[in-house]
Amino acid sequence: MKKLILDLDTGVDDTLAIAYALGSPEVELIGITGTYGNVLMEQGVRNALAITDILGHPEVPVYKGLPHASTKDGFEVLPISAFIHGENGIGDVEIPDSGRDAQDGGVDFIVDAVKTYGKDLIIVPTGPQTNVAAAIRKAPEIVDEVGRIVLMGGALTVPGNVNAWTEANISQDPDAANFVFRSGVPATMVGLDVTLQTLLTYKETRRWRDLGTAAGKALADITDFYIKAYETTAPHLGGCGLHDPLAVGVAVDPTLVTCLPINMKVDVDGPTRGRTIGDEQRLNDPVKTMEAAVQVDVDRFLDEFMTRISNLAAAAK
Amino acid sequence: MKKLILDLDTGVDDTLAIAYALGSPEVELIGITGTYGNVLMEQGVRNALAITDILGHPEVPVYKGLPHASTKDGFEVLPISAFIHGENGIGDVEIPDSGRDAQDGGVDFIVDAVKTYGKDLIIVPTGPQTNVAAAIRKAPEIVDEVGRIVLMGGALTVPGNVNAWTEANISQDPDAANFVFRSGVPATMVGLDVTLQTLLTYKETRRWRDLGTAAGKALADITDFYIKAYETTAPHLGGCGLHDPLAVGVAVDPTLVTCLPINMKVDVDGPTRGRTIGDEQRLNDPVKTMEAAVQVDVDRFLDEFMTRISNLAAAAK
Repeated sequence: MKKLILDLDTGVDDTLAIAYALGSPEVELIGITGTYGNVLMEQGVRNALAITDILGHPEVPVYKGLPHASTKDGFEVLPISAFIHGENGIGDVEIPDSGRDAQDGGVDFIVDAVKTYGKDLIIVPTGPQTNVAAAIRKAPEIVDEVGRIVLMGGALTVPGNVNAWTEANISQDPDAANFVFRSGVPATMVGLDVTLQTLLTYKETRRWRDLGTAAGKALADITDFYIKAYETTAPHLGGCGLHDPLAVGVAVDPTLVTCLPINMKVDVDGPTRGRTIGDEQRLNDPVKTMEAAVQVDVDRFLDEFMTRISNLAAAAK
Repeated sequence: MKKLILDLDTGVDDTLAIAYALGSPEVELIGITGTYGNVLMEQGVRNALAITDILGHPEVPVYKGLPHASTKDGFEVLPISAFIHGENGIGDVEIPDSGRDAQDGGVDFIVDAVKTYGKDLIIVPTGPQTNVAAAIRKAPEIVDEVGRIVLMGGALTVPGNVNAWTEANISQDPDAANFVFRSGVPATMVGLDVTLQTLLTYKETRRWRDLGTAAGKALADITDFYIKAYETTAPHLGGCGLHDPLAVGVAVDPTLVTCLPINMKVDVDGPTRGRTIGDEQRLNDPVKTMEAAVQVDVDRFLDEFMTRISNLAAAAK
């Protein structure tokens, strides 16, 4: 069975990513590592613990990762992130704190998991690439040993969402992302190209609320906050983008997307800092270590998404 | 039989585009319209007349198009263009002037050709989109009547060649290109994504020289100048990019490339002016009027390229 690590800045769509992973019998979620972005790292791991609890899976360990980019001294949540995810990261919905604590050593957990599971391990980072880059710097050989990185982040064929060329996750730590992209690790970029095509509306969240479980109500309330924010930030879409759960979906079933094999880089200098783009120096290298998702089977993904998460939320007490 | 119009700023690879078209029995080259870019428009039509003559096809009419972008008062050849294509546009190789003159009215010729040939007509612009945009402004209905635009220009998944985000043809007139891209005309973008994968070296040009014809010698001499410039401007490639002839190749046989259906725009404001990118406002529109070539069958294209052009150059006296 495939093993999954989610590397999350647990916000709203990260919450849905946890639910998708826990609702997927094809994979085992062996742990969650915490990063920063939608929220502070500490708030993210608090949320990840609470969410795994309410979804009925308190066996999933949660680890603290790095609290900021290696090129910076600290991290503060941007106002736009709080607007989209709420001050607490989960739509300002109150759910009980877990009785568990997050463990230290998220980067070491990633390295150890590669050593234990090798090609059976898929790492799904849905925030900055800071933890994954640190793991590769610590143990460079893992780029050849890990199964794959399936990351939510970047934008290859569409504009960014921070500015015209930068996507939010990549923008937090472009240097780390560039390091990962050029490292040779097998990686699938699930970026705005596809995640802005997979939209959720109040119609779907109502189905969760109607389940009558605490889990269903929490998921519906949390996601409704996010849909409402999208009405302001991206009214042309008509729903909220299912960014992070699509990355989990692709980790579980790569056939949900069509990928372009391409060796990528992240611009770290100049005015387009943070842009994800093909590396012209490796354009004609026949070996492509990365691929970018450029098309998605929207209907099939939404169907899988609703089925898996609804079943999970129905079963959780 | 498909009818082709080439809209050229006849430079070196435009010359090879003419040769590819004339060497392709599947299509009839019904005319060449002149634009600016690699050279002044006037120099470009002079070259197009001389090249069609030396390739044995003096029946192909050549028309003058617009000499500069509608947003500008004039046009001057950039030093880098002269470095790559030579002062005269064809590698500073001297070939005889044609006895023919270029005709006025390139934009009208495009409109009239759409009216005459409709869906059988493919327009292949390999310079700025100025003439095509003017034709559409003059007769907006042609967007529904023409077969297709297959343009060389832009860069979707790789950096530009003018700067990190702009390709040379698009950079000459981003407003015209944005107008064409958003017009709804069926269009295939053959950009740097694929043209920098199709490389020619001295080994191939030697085959043309060895034919012993004036046409073969001219093509070899002109192209060698261009290969030499690439040794300075893009030494990592190991050859010269076959930009313009690949667009003709795709017009003749679309199966040479794999395309991503995508509604595109050109950034006209802000720091990334001139960037070709997916239009986020039309991301979820199920109707895709454009497609971007993202992969190319390099070996098959180079084989077709050499066969067609060598046969043509051997037959020309």
